[in-house]
Amino acid sequence: MQRTARARDVGLACGNLPTGELNSITDVQGVRVGHHTLVDGDIRTGVTAIVPYGGNLYREKPVAAVHVLNGFGKSAGLIQVEELGTIETPILLTNTLAVGTCCTALVRHAIEHNPDIGRETATVNPVVFECNDGYLNDIQALAVTEEDARTALANASSRFDVGSVGAGCGMSTFGFKGGIGTSSRRLDLDDRSYHLGVLVLSNFGRAGDLRLPDGRVVVQPETQMERYATEKGSIIIIAATDIPLNDRQLKRVIRRSGVGLARLGSFWGHGSGDIALGFTTANVLSHDEKAALVNICILNENRIDLLFEAVADATQEAVIDALVAAGSMTGRAGHHRPALTDAL
Amino acid sequence: MQRTARARDVGLACGNLPTGELNSITDVQGVRVGHHTLVDGDIRTGVTAIVPYGGNLYREKPVAAVHVLNGFGKSAGLIQVEELGTIETPILLTNTLAVGTCCTALVRHAIEHNPDIGRETATVNPVVFECNDGYLNDIQALAVTEEDARTALANASSRFDVGSVGAGCGMSTFGFKGGIGTSSRRLDLDDRSYHLGVLVLSNFGRAGDLRLPDGRVVVQPETQMERYATEKGSIIIIAATDIPLNDRQLKRVIRRSGVGLARLGSFWGHGSGDIALGFTTANVLSHDEKAALVNICILNENRIDLLFEAVADATQEAVIDALVAAGSMTGRAGHHRPALTDAL
Amino acid sequence: MQRTARARDVGLACGNLPTGELNSITDVQGVRVGHHTLVDGDIRTGVTAIVPYGGNLYREKPVAAVHVLNGFGKSAGLIQVEELGTIETPILLTNTLAVGTCCTALVRHAIEHNPDIGRETATVNPVVFECNDGYLNDIQALAVTEEDARTALANASSRFDVGSVGAGCGMSTFGFKGGIGTSSRRLDLDDRSYHLGVLVLSNFGRAGDLRLPDGRVVVQPETQMERYATEKGSIIIIAATDIPLNDRQLKRVIRRSGVGLARLGSFWGHGSGDIALGFTTANVLSHDEKAALVNICILNENRIDLLFEAVADATQEAVIDALVAAGSMTGRAGHHRPALTDAL
Amino acid sequence: MQRTARARDVGLACGNLPTGELNSITDVQGVRVGHHTLVDGDIRTGVTAIVPYGGNLYREKPVAAVHVLNGFGKSAGLIQVEELGTIETPILLTNTLAVGTCCTALVRHAIEHNPDIGRETATVNPVVFECNDGYLNDIQALAVTEEDARTALANASSRFDVGSVGAGCGMSTFGFKGGIGTSSRRLDLDDRSYHLGVLVLSNFGRAGDLRLPDGRVVVQPETQMERYATEKGSIIIIAATDIPLNDRQLKRVIRRSGVGLARLGSFWGHGSGDIALGFTTANVLSHDEKAALVNICILNENRIDLLFEAVADATQEAVIDALVAAGSMTGRAGHHRPALTDAL
Repeated sequence: MQRTARARDVGLACGNLPTGELNSITDVQGVRVGHHTLVDGDIRTGVTAIVPYGGNLYREKPVAAVHVLNGFGKSAGLIQVEELGTIETPILLTNTLAVGTCCTALVRHAIEHNPDIGRETATVNPVVFECNDGYLNDIQALAVTEEDARTALANASSRFDVGSVGAGCGMSTFGFKGGIGTSSRRLDLDDRSYHLGVLVLSNFGRAGDLRLPDGRVVVQPETQMERYATEKGSIIIIAATDIPLNDRQLKRVIRRSGVGLARLGSFWGHGSGDIALGFTTANVLSHDEKAALVNICILNENRIDLLFEAVADATQEAVIDALVAAGSMTGRAGHHRPALTDAL
Repeated sequence: MQRTARARDVGLACGNLPTGELNSITDVQGVRVGHHTLVDGDIRTGVTAIVPYGGNLYREKPVAAVHVLNGFGKSAGLIQVEELGTIETPILLTNTLAVGTCCTALVRHAIEHNPDIGRETATVNPVVFECNDGYLNDIQALAVTEEDARTALANASSRFDVGSVGAGCGMSTFGFKGGIGTSSRRLDLDDRSYHLGVLVLSNFGRAGDLRLPDGRVVVQPETQMERYATEKGSIIIIAATDIPLNDRQLKRVIRRSGVGLARLGSFWGHGSGDIALGFTTANVLSHDEKAALVNICILNENRIDLLFEAVADATQEAVIDALVAAGSMTGRAGHHRPALTDAL
Repeated sequence: MQRTARARDVGLACGNLPTGELNSITDVQGVRVGHHTLVDGDIRTGVTAIVPYGGNLYREKPVAAVHVLNGFGKSAGLIQVEELGTIETPILLTNTLAVGTCCTALVRHAIEHNPDIGRETATVNPVVFECNDGYLNDIQALAVTEEDARTALANASSRFDVGSVGAGCGMSTFGFKGGIGTSSRRLDLDDRSYHLGVLVLSNFGRAGDLRLPDGRVVVQPETQMERYATEKGSIIIIAATDIPLNDRQLKRVIRRSGVGLARLGSFWGHGSGDIALGFTTANVLSHDEKAALVNICILNENRIDLLFEAVADATQEAVIDALVAAGSMTGRAGHHRPALTDAL
Repeated sequence: MQRTARARDVGLACGNLPTGELNSITDVQGVRVGHHTLVDGDIRTGVTAIVPYGGNLYREKPVAAVHVLNGFGKSAGLIQVEELGTIETPILLTNTLAVGTCCTALVRHAIEHNPDIGRETATVNPVVFECNDGYLNDIQALAVTEEDARTALANASSRFDVGSVGAGCGMSTFGFKGGIGTSSRRLDLDDRSYHLGVLVLSNFGRAGDLRLPDGRVVVQPETQMERYATEKGSIIIIAATDIPLNDRQLKRVIRRSGVGLARLGSFWGHGSGDIALGFTTANVLSHDEKAALVNICILNENRIDLLFEAVADATQEAVIDALVAAGSMTGRAGHHRPALTDAL
């Protein structure tokens, strides 16, 4: 089902900034991504894990921020990220009705590595994002198990597939088959290179609205248009960087993911839970900090336009990456999504 | 373990407004509350369900709002309430690590009553709130099951217990045994009577900080003070009314729950997830609405001070209600919480 | 200096929805716009007034909402709109350093018509928005007077000029001459027609980033590119409608003005104060309301995508309208902005 | 009219933390406060300036945050503080209808010291807060001039009066004469002492609701109760510290000013614009920063409860300080406010 093609393989690049080596969120050093995909009968779903770095996230918490573009969504863990500006678990992506199960999986995972949770120290805030894959997947089956989530975590690697994999298995985008996509930009500040990478779980957009970076509007077979027009969607945008930022700066940056979506033809529709989370591996706060004061490094805000441009470009391209990598799929009740590459 | 005493039975009333007949959130017509309590070995936990009215909540959604006083918490479902200003499931309260399980239970419950969820119509947003009962409860055991949540839902009634019941089983407040408490106020607008009721899951406050409505500061046995001082807490405030409000007005109203907490001696501590949700049974929006426009009724905002005062008073009194109703408890690892009534 | 051409006169339309008769914010019945333009020596500035309807706004307050896309701005009055969901004065647009003077002008204007302000009743919340016209205008001169603001109010009419007029006199957009632009959409709900209109004060965008609705990227004379690249901007978006909405719905709608900006090539730059205000003439709340409860009408939220699309399209087109209507201008210190129409 | 008595002179202290040497916001090194008071005929108003430190604030911007407890207010400059987390002018306090004039005064003041404003560099964000003194002051007279604002700035000193001075001249609190009050706390972190100071412009609270820190409820002469009950109010809380914080931490801290207000008997009434601003002198960001990255120091968030407690206590005490220092006053139309000290 998987295709290896990426957005740039079919000539669809976004913006003028250089990409990282892999053109992937894993160009940010330490970031790893793992999938577990479920395809069986009417099941087309899965879990994708984003692991910010190799250590114990509960002990050393990356600075993070969330931004809700449109809150018609059921993602978990956002309130605490908003209050404290950090994450303390890996990030899981899955289908809407599997959020609870993935939360519990992250709780158990955290306890295993931190037996003081809920005893000598605080509890833990699992961060789980979701889209509704109910068009292609029998979402009522609640097929995702805690074990599936753990497998996705165990599969985390700097090399990972895009397209109809993991949480992206049953997703749709602008009436085509969607899924997981990624893209990155290399950013030079003073005399050093940094990266900003984006991974999307792409399941948004009305059929007929897709606009490619070269200006083309992609028309689909007429016969399926009406059905698509009433579909519900969502998109989750995860942004990672090794540039030192505080949580307010990160929030400003990830807000510009909405620019990438708008360029693609979306107006952040009513029924679409469009949510972004960003983290930086350059500022990590210790759970067990003893000192009263902590030194951190932040960006000179006058330079932040570079990051705004990068996240807009990388989000736009990551969606196209998902569209290009995902082949066509037939799922639940014979529902079908064509591949963008077939329409091009 | 349960005591039948209420706050007013020991002479602790708050403010000057009249209460409803039961001095309970269920004075708001249609509201029901159910508990399921788990006590076994080191387990001291449970689930509490608040059901806004007797019908299908997914089909007819009460107008609602959330307000985060301090976001060090893991409650689920808030993002969508914020975006859309409605709830579409009953509200569950439980311990922090059981949020995922209770979300899944609400999802299954909604699908049973609405087989079009995730197929012909949208998915569903489970609303689950939590406090950390890890001092008295073996929270790592993840003892709460989906079946427990369903039992709490099935137990919903206009008459319900307060104190160490349901989600309140293992909770602590200002170093004393806490739990579930409730209070209501009767409000007269033009020529009609309405009610505003509050239910709290009370698990907050530093030992030694509690101030009673008559000005007394309650001192506890010195020996346990230090341990208590480092405890983590949280409080969940659920407010119900039959006064017609829009979501913005509801948000303004429930924000004043923080006034009640402050009067009790709290400063909304760093580690405390203090979160309020309010709903009105007087404005209910249809999932299947066909008309383009909908008539609703809202409050003349010049009258809103009455509701501000009511929610501040009722929140303050609901916490005292929990303290008075909960007896002393010994739980996990021999940890003990004395009863407020023993200290008075 | 003024040109009469509009966006559609040069073939630049946005989206597929029909426009109102005037393709103007004044297609919303009752809305009027007035300008006062200051051109003298190095002065290129002015004031633009948007009057929601013909009555006493302080007595009958339109439901309203604000949304801050990027808060690097100095607009006044937003806090109260956010809290109460209404406006109570006309809206003034001007240059950044004239906000204080325009606030005072609105205060005096309100007192004249409501002698009980600050005596028997509350005070008044002036709503003033701004962009920085300092490239073409000697903004340090603080040239705008209270009298200028009153003249703009007095000039309010359903027919008004666009381009380099009023507050738009000295503004720039994507390196070209910007200013005031407008556009509207006609929306049919059930069996009735409504309008949503947008007026922009357009002063944003990096030179070289402008993308027209047909996909063209407009390249400017190279020689001026570098200077433009470091310019600061801002855009103010005022949306009016006669569709009944509550303030939360209005906020969701005006948020999509950011989609229009993104389609034009903007990423909501760091230095740009991008702020939207929306109001509806269909819900007006009485300052002197005696009844405890008030009936209002709101939109069935399932229909809101139509408004999202309309505001995105109308914002995009209003910016192009400003670009097309504004001729080239030479201002302070010989600074020059070419006209977009010369580059096309 | 002025009294020299402070809150502690009449035995009214709040909380258990030690105060700074002056028990004043100016215990934070570098902070200065200046007043200009207008008393003439029916005029009872003025301006108060808070200057964070001795240098050029536009060039070196203190990290800052705002929190809106209740947004029925007309303060200016908050949007940019929220976006960027800094202030760049002194802070002015005045009456509601003088906000525009004080904004313009701050603009001119900034231009004088920074002639590149609006030319080679950005514009400037004046920060002005207000309360409605219309009960005692002829607020319609718009008596405050730019010169008055400049005089307040010029008067800034580490020693300043409290009570009916500056912006506090005509203010009321819980039916008594209110005005300017201040208080501070000394906080020890690791081996060093820091300060957190609060200054309030106190003009809030219903007559009859005031509760003193010792639990007393202060009853006023019955005859004036009804009139007072319908008065509008507001309170502005300015918090300063030399503890290194980021803007998110500052926002969390100043939010707890609402705890202090609630302890005093307020429920943050509908008509009261209750707004807090905090800044730290320990993190100052350069307008002309050349480096891409900047090192700052922040608080270990596990210690933040100490600051929460300090700001709650200091806000509570600053209000009492204003009440104690302000004598009785007769103003516009013979309106009278008694002194709290006369009622005690």
